Amino acid sequence: MKIIVEKNYEEMSQMAATYMLHYMTKNRPVNLAITAGRTPKRMYELLVPLVKNRPCFKNVHYYNFDEIPFKGLDCEPVTISHLRESYFTPARIPEENIHPLTMENYAEHDANLRAVNGLDMIMIGLGADGHYCGNSPGATKFGDSTVKGKILPEEIQSIADTDMNGDTSLVPDEFVTMGPKSVMNAKNIVLIVNGSEKAEMVKRILEGEVDEMVPASILPLHPSLTVILDAEAAALLSPKTLSVYR
Amino acid sequence: MKIIVEKNYEEMSQMAATYMLHYMTKNRPVNLAITAGRTPKRMYELLVPLVKNRPCFKNVHYYNFDEIPFKGLDCEPVTISHLRESYFTPARIPEENIHPLTMENYAEHDANLRAVNGLDMIMIGLGADGHYCGNSPGATKFGDSTVKGKILPEEIQSIADTDMNGDTSLVPDEFVTMGPKSVMNAKNIVLIVNGSEKAEMVKRILEGEVDEMVPASILPLHPSLTVILDAEAAALLSPKTLSVYR
Amino acid sequence: MKIIVEKNYEEMSQMAATYMLHYMTKNRPVNLAITAGRTPKRMYELLVPLVKNRPCFKNVHYYNFDEIPFKGLDCEPVTISHLRESYFTPARIPEENIHPLTMENYAEHDANLRAVNGLDMIMIGLGADGHYCGNSPGATKFGDSTVKGKILPEEIQSIADTDMNGDTSLVPDEFVTMGPKSVMNAKNIVLIVNGSEKAEMVKRILEGEVDEMVPASILPLHPSLTVILDAEAAALLSPKTLSVYR
Amino acid sequence: MKIIVEKNYEEMSQMAATYMLHYMTKNRPVNLAITAGRTPKRMYELLVPLVKNRPCFKNVHYYNFDEIPFKGLDCEPVTISHLRESYFTPARIPEENIHPLTMENYAEHDANLRAVNGLDMIMIGLGADGHYCGNSPGATKFGDSTVKGKILPEEIQSIADTDMNGDTSLVPDEFVTMGPKSVMNAKNIVLIVNGSEKAEMVKRILEGEVDEMVPASILPLHPSLTVILDAEAAALLSPKTLSVYR
Repeated sequence: MKIIVEKNYEEMSQMAATYMLHYMTKNRPVNLAITAGRTPKRMYELLVPLVKNRPCFKNVHYYNFDEIPFKGLDCEPVTISHLRESYFTPARIPEENIHPLTMENYAEHDANLRAVNGLDMIMIGLGADGHYCGNSPGATKFGDSTVKGKILPEEIQSIADTDMNGDTSLVPDEFVTMGPKSVMNAKNIVLIVNGSEKAEMVKRILEGEVDEMVPASILPLHPSLTVILDAEAAALLSPKTLSVYR
Repeated sequence: MKIIVEKNYEEMSQMAATYMLHYMTKNRPVNLAITAGRTPKRMYELLVPLVKNRPCFKNVHYYNFDEIPFKGLDCEPVTISHLRESYFTPARIPEENIHPLTMENYAEHDANLRAVNGLDMIMIGLGADGHYCGNSPGATKFGDSTVKGKILPEEIQSIADTDMNGDTSLVPDEFVTMGPKSVMNAKNIVLIVNGSEKAEMVKRILEGEVDEMVPASILPLHPSLTVILDAEAAALLSPKTLSVYR
Repeated sequence: MKIIVEKNYEEMSQMAATYMLHYMTKNRPVNLAITAGRTPKRMYELLVPLVKNRPCFKNVHYYNFDEIPFKGLDCEPVTISHLRESYFTPARIPEENIHPLTMENYAEHDANLRAVNGLDMIMIGLGADGHYCGNSPGATKFGDSTVKGKILPEEIQSIADTDMNGDTSLVPDEFVTMGPKSVMNAKNIVLIVNGSEKAEMVKRILEGEVDEMVPASILPLHPSLTVILDAEAAALLSPKTLSVYR
Repeated sequence: MKIIVEKNYEEMSQMAATYMLHYMTKNRPVNLAITAGRTPKRMYELLVPLVKNRPCFKNVHYYNFDEIPFKGLDCEPVTISHLRESYFTPARIPEENIHPLTMENYAEHDANLRAVNGLDMIMIGLGADGHYCGNSPGATKFGDSTVKGKILPEEIQSIADTDMNGDTSLVPDEFVTMGPKSVMNAKNIVLIVNGSEKAEMVKRILEGEVDEMVPASILPLHPSLTVILDAEAAALLSPKTLSVYR
């Protein structure tokens, strides 16, 4: 594990972009799974001008790691829509390099990844409740591969607020996500976190016990985990943790 | 994960030796942690003539992953003694390439490994109870690094039988082991298992849930796990498991 | 560069087999180009029982690096025939893992290799005249990729003796070979040499100047060259060379 | 080989910085040798704010690949002075991570690099005469390791103009440089070139023959060469070259 603490969101985004580029600049096919959401917003803004129209990145393939459809709407679902908007479209990633995860193909997702020799890197965010990808507390177990899960009644409002402009009628009954086993099987994991509201959870997963009800607590068992934090998210880490892993 | 099934103990040992040599033949320092006990006995017999007196393997360093002292005896403890007898001494491994884990130095073990960039490979066996290294059910938790543990009253006879010629007066109160977190942090894991008495546990860890009371059930979450089995140990695996990971 | 000196042909063959297996035991597709001829004969005998019927090696693809047809005969040419006889057939390598180089496809050979991310390893022998693959003195230039070359009048008898039971009428006018540039572009090179008649040339290429008329003199410029020698082939190397690269 | 063509010097510098960071963001010690001179000036400006005061780059060590002293002056020589000014000092690289090459230590340079497992990457520029590092036409031979060379009378004015404010009295009699063999032994080579005055030489080394009098013509034989060009430097390359290596 390597912990990198940047002084603010801008510099955290810069370092995250550097790690993205690190995995992209290889002279062979590269498979990445990258996160949507607020955390990487600035990172994608920094990446777009560096990636756009550059044939040297044609070797990079993007796989989604979770997805949630809009109920009753005949449009692309949440995660892929976000990724297109913030990165794929402005960076002009060719369609053949984009591999969406869907409610229909999720059962073949792990086999598809194995067929291309697995993910080189998965970049994920962290929820204040300890979730990553669709692995919310109680939603998946450590041994799960890519699975379909049920959305719980108590999650409907939060999903509607985050991804559907507050319209709970669009929240579906089910979602799909790479489970902990599939995520841990990636060759490298990069976890990016910013903001003081996540400082408790950062401390919990890096210094506390491994517990299925704190899904991200499994991540430090990975042999190549890089954690990129802004100062606020890192504020509660003990000096010992920082001295060991910095 | 890759599962290799060999038809008998001899061929399993041959393949295990091939994997050992795979990690040894690099043109840079290599750090291995390798298992003592019955399972690798034949593997070491095959390795000794290939390794003995060959300067091309001077880059290979050996770190122990668990240890248990003899109570009241002023001699080297169990694991290092076994490894010396079966491998280090006949293969003439230089003393400076041997890094024992002891009751005294265990607290620095993880820091020492980090200082040399970690283990390139750890080769471990599997107990019929699901233990690996000193990680017996209940002895350690998934989040443990290298730790000191208490030997339980019910374990005394078995330890005496396995390692101390049945003399229970030699069984100490404590032992040390790399915990699950330290083992999972190795870049590559090779698990070798033979014999029908372990077939149930092989099936359990490769096809069942991840459970702290089945310590080896965490291993399939590692991004580079190779499982080398003889036919008896593999006998209960489902055709699906074999087709996916073979 | 790493120089490994084994005491005799048997042990040189053993170590060469170890290096073959080193590149074969990866959990991803692997592309090798391997040498026919007398030098690797024993190595293949050692490899066959280890490779035969093992699905764990289905990831290994074999590409030929040179070829010479039999003039007027409608049969497979020299190199592929030798490799089939000594290795592919007894080791039961699936036909889809064998990629012959031919008089017809040589112009696409480098593009084909690039499309699969290049050779992971090329194992070559050394001629007493400094040739490797079909790169005889004067036949190719350092900058050549895979090329077609003319067989010179003075080479006809030697080719007939080596590969065609002395029948000079079977010697063709042309051959194909990966040139120095294509060979050097492999990620790793393993050079195996045995016998006192090659000791002068071993010394020449490892200690002398780089000269297009000594084709193998370019090899020490490769960042990952392993040289496996028997004692006779290594006999003339200076103590300094051995101390630096051993 | 991979050829990356950027539309201007700014974007070439950006991509060169990306490759620098690619090799720097590893969780293990990394050894780089990087070029001074005009070509990388903007790259260093882009790198400085990304590298300054970041402990995550403490694993990166810098080795010089050539050097030329000021005659009669008791000050640091040319190359290290340039690197300090443009990069080491503003980026606050710790002194223990800087490993100068000197007139005194050059004979141990290759052994020193071997002891740390070699260079992970060497980033070099190209002269309009085909030189790289101190390997001017006629100055070194392909087989040379790190060597001391004589400065020729016809070179004095050019050296004075480039590095000594035109003061020929400061030009020394000798210089040191990693020779072609030492450079080619680096695991990865990145060549950066800009400007129309170098377009002829770019074409020559990427499409012409390998010739000791065109020192950089050896570089395409390296298995991991990345060439980063601006549009002017790439202007004369054939469409075939660009289609093959882009």
